[in-house]
Amino acid sequence: MAQLRFDISVSLDGFIAGPDPNTEQPLGAGGERLHEWAYELEAFRRMHGMAGGAVNRDSEVVEESTGNTGAFIMGRRMFGGGEGSWDESWRGWWGQDPPFHAPVFVLTHHPREPLVMAGGTKFTFVTDGIESALAEARSAAGDKDVAVAGGADVAQQYLAAGLLDEFQIHVSPVLLGAGTRLFGDDATDVQLEIERVVESSTVTHIRYRVVR
Amino acid sequence: MAQLRFDISVSLDGFIAGPDPNTEQPLGAGGERLHEWAYELEAFRRMHGMAGGAVNRDSEVVEESTGNTGAFIMGRRMFGGGEGSWDESWRGWWGQDPPFHAPVFVLTHHPREPLVMAGGTKFTFVTDGIESALAEARSAAGDKDVAVAGGADVAQQYLAAGLLDEFQIHVSPVLLGAGTRLFGDDATDVQLEIERVVESSTVTHIRYRVVR
Repeated sequence: MAQLRFDISVSLDGFIAGPDPNTEQPLGAGGERLHEWAYELEAFRRMHGMAGGAVNRDSEVVEESTGNTGAFIMGRRMFGGGEGSWDESWRGWWGQDPPFHAPVFVLTHHPREPLVMAGGTKFTFVTDGIESALAEARSAAGDKDVAVAGGADVAQQYLAAGLLDEFQIHVSPVLLGAGTRLFGDDATDVQLEIERVVESSTVTHIRYRVVR
Repeated sequence: MAQLRFDISVSLDGFIAGPDPNTEQPLGAGGERLHEWAYELEAFRRMHGMAGGAVNRDSEVVEESTGNTGAFIMGRRMFGGGEGSWDESWRGWWGQDPPFHAPVFVLTHHPREPLVMAGGTKFTFVTDGIESALAEARSAAGDKDVAVAGGADVAQQYLAAGLLDEFQIHVSPVLLGAGTRLFGDDATDVQLEIERVVESSTVTHIRYRVVR
């Protein structure tokens, strides 16, 4: 069966965003440094509509993940558009051709009609919880995996609910000191197995399997 | 020149000890799980005076570290013996034959005569700061490295002072949720390079070099 998983860049001290995120710096102070390993990769650049870039072990890891992903789930804050009811003109942070190129299910309390973007991304808004979003995403993904695109709170909810199969962290050699932690305070009874490690000079990819 | 470095086991969420450490559980709730990868190794057992055990990539990493270490530096809390002036009967947490088998320099504000233990461990108490302790330890270590044995606060002080050359973390597939963080809030300007990754089924060893 297809897996529910996530892929995320994290600092050596456990943060997926730096302190004080805002619209100017959505990843918080220093948060862009977490993703430096990816910016020059051909796989990353293609996803974002740019030509050229490096092909190496890191890009293979990215290709593998994107190639296996049939649908995404994300939280309301990651889609953006304010905390209240929808401003229907908001179409996400990623422009007209978002880097997902697949169905994306946005967890929210505010109903909204689906939003079809260029390049294969379609945002569908799910108001009845994480299990319902997962069922819809699985159905859309077919044989492929469903990936939690973020944020950390959504990943934590799926982990805590026992629904997550595996996750891969990309550990950047960066210390952020403070910010948004990937893991919460209450996941201490989760049993994990190391599934695979891929090393490079710029980042360490570690994939874990959640043991049921 | 010989290096100043540390080796430490850390949870996937960045803690080197769990919450609520006390004399019953000095590593805090769940903290023992960080070290499970090491307990069965021949290299670890020999260091603690026990025969037998596994020889594998993990034990090679341990052997390499202990073989290159000529002296240790540790904080007062890691040596123990209370927060006030010394109870001279206190001889550390590790029994008569501690696992260091080398000179150990203990950072403290309370002078005390050196303490010679069985098996080559000698505790020397240094009252005039981290640079003085490092000079004494380097002199004692000869051509070998000096290792910071802990705690995290001492490792952070050497990192912040620009005195640390490298460190190796042993990332256990464990979530502790809370506890003692390896890194503090203020090391965000430290530049790191990934030096080496060793993977196994139980732990991921990542060695970083501090860039000056």
